[in-house]
Amino acid sequence: MVKKAVCLISGGIDSCVTAFMAKKQGYEIYALTINYGQRHKKELESAKKIALFLKAKKHIIININLSKFGGSSLIDKTKKIEKNRSLQEIGKNIPSTYVPARNTVFLSIALAFAEAICGDAVFIGATATDYSGYPDCRAEFIDAFQKLSDIATKKGLENKPIKIIAPLISLTKSQIIKKGFELKAPLDKTWSCYVGGKKACGRCDSCLLRLKGFKELGMKDPIEYNFLPDWYKKNL
Amino acid sequence: MVKKAVCLISGGIDSCVTAFMAKKQGYEIYALTINYGQRHKKELESAKKIALFLKAKKHIIININLSKFGGSSLIDKTKKIEKNRSLQEIGKNIPSTYVPARNTVFLSIALAFAEAICGDAVFIGATATDYSGYPDCRAEFIDAFQKLSDIATKKGLENKPIKIIAPLISLTKSQIIKKGFELKAPLDKTWSCYVGGKKACGRCDSCLLRLKGFKELGMKDPIEYNFLPDWYKKNL
Repeated sequence: MVKKAVCLISGGIDSCVTAFMAKKQGYEIYALTINYGQRHKKELESAKKIALFLKAKKHIIININLSKFGGSSLIDKTKKIEKNRSLQEIGKNIPSTYVPARNTVFLSIALAFAEAICGDAVFIGATATDYSGYPDCRAEFIDAFQKLSDIATKKGLENKPIKIIAPLISLTKSQIIKKGFELKAPLDKTWSCYVGGKKACGRCDSCLLRLKGFKELGMKDPIEYNFLPDWYKKNL
Repeated sequence: MVKKAVCLISGGIDSCVTAFMAKKQGYEIYALTINYGQRHKKELESAKKIALFLKAKKHIIININLSKFGGSSLIDKTKKIEKNRSLQEIGKNIPSTYVPARNTVFLSIALAFAEAICGDAVFIGATATDYSGYPDCRAEFIDAFQKLSDIATKKGLENKPIKIIAPLISLTKSQIIKKGFELKAPLDKTWSCYVGGKKACGRCDSCLLRLKGFKELGMKDPIEYNFLPDWYKKNL
C-alpha cells in the first residue's frame, strides 16, 4: 500500500527540500500551505510552483488570519523587520519576525489533514541550526508534538500513529541546499525573503541566511536580489 | 497585575461555563471562537452573545476552513450525522461528528493568541465524561498539550509557561450545567445541536447528552427544541 505524507510547503528552501526528501522515501505527497497573513503573496506563488513540480496528489491552501492576534513583524505591518544584521547577530535572540506558536498551529493543521486522509506522516522543514532563536524550531519541540499527536488522534488510539518528521532539524542551511541540489529540487522557484517585492531584498535575516548557505558551498543563489552583501559577492 | 486568559468559546454549554469559571477566578477574558466550517452559523451567534455577557476584553473570530480536508459529518455535508441513538450507544465508539485533530488545532490557535497578548492561561471546555469517544477530549491530551506548550513558546522558554486549563475534564454534563447555574452563566443563549435550524433538533448526540444533563438535575432546558425524547418529557 502506498504511504501518504502531508508536506507543509511554505515556498522557502527548507520545506521544498523536505518535501523532495519525502518523495524520495516513496511517500505520496499531500501538499499543504498555510496562508497565515504574511506580508506578501510571493511565498504562496512559490509554494504552488513547488507543489506542481512535486506532482503532489493534492495541494490544499488553508487561510488563517493570525495577524488578528498581532505580535510579529511578519504579519503586523506596524512592526519593523530587522535588516542588514551581521551573521553573528542573527540567532542570538528571538527576532521580531517570530510568529507566536506558528509551528504549533502549522503542525496541528497538518495533523488534521493527515488524519482526514488516513495519512502516515507529516513532514515539516523546521531547522534548529541557523535559527536557534525560534522555540518551535527545535528537536525537543518536534518530539513533544509527536507525543501529543500519538494521543490526540484516532490513528494514535488505534496504535497506527502519524509520524512527525523534521528531516532538516540538525542540518545547516548549506547542507540543506546541497541536499536540494542532489534531489534536483527546484531551488530557483523558492522564495525566502521576508520583505516581498519582485526581487528578494538581500538584507533581511532570511535572505542573509540563505545567501550564507550558498556562499559556503561556493555556489550562486539562482534567484534574483535587489541588493547583495559584500561578503557574498567576494570571490564568487 | 491582571491575569489574562484566552477562552475558547464555541457557543455550547461547556465552553460557556468554562469561560465563566475563568472570570470567577479573576482572569481578564480574551474570547476566541474558531469558525471551522461547521454546518451552521447558530453556534457562532451564540458565541457572540456569550462573549458580550462575559464582558470579554476582546472577542476574536478566526475562520479556518477545515472542511477542505473532509473526514467528519460535522463539516462534510455528504456524511450523515447519527440520530436518535440510545444514551448507551453514545460514547461507545468515535462518532461521525469527530473532526480530525480539532482540539489540537483549537488549542494551538488559542496558544498563538495567548502568546501574542502575553497571556497567562488558555481555557478549554473539553470534557471526557460523556464523550469518551473523542481522543482529544481526555485529560492525557490536555497534559500532552501543556508539555508541548511549555517548550513551543517564548513564554515557556522564559519559564513563564502559559497554563492550559480544562476545568470540566472530569465533570458530567449535569455537573457542568449545575456549575453554570451557580455562576449565572447564560445557558439560555447556548447552542449545542449539530444539525442547526431555528430550534434544536432533539435527536443528535449533542442534543441528547444536553437533555440528559438537564434531566438528571430535574430541570428544564431553557432552549427550544423541535422534538423531545420520551425519557426527557416523563415526569418533568
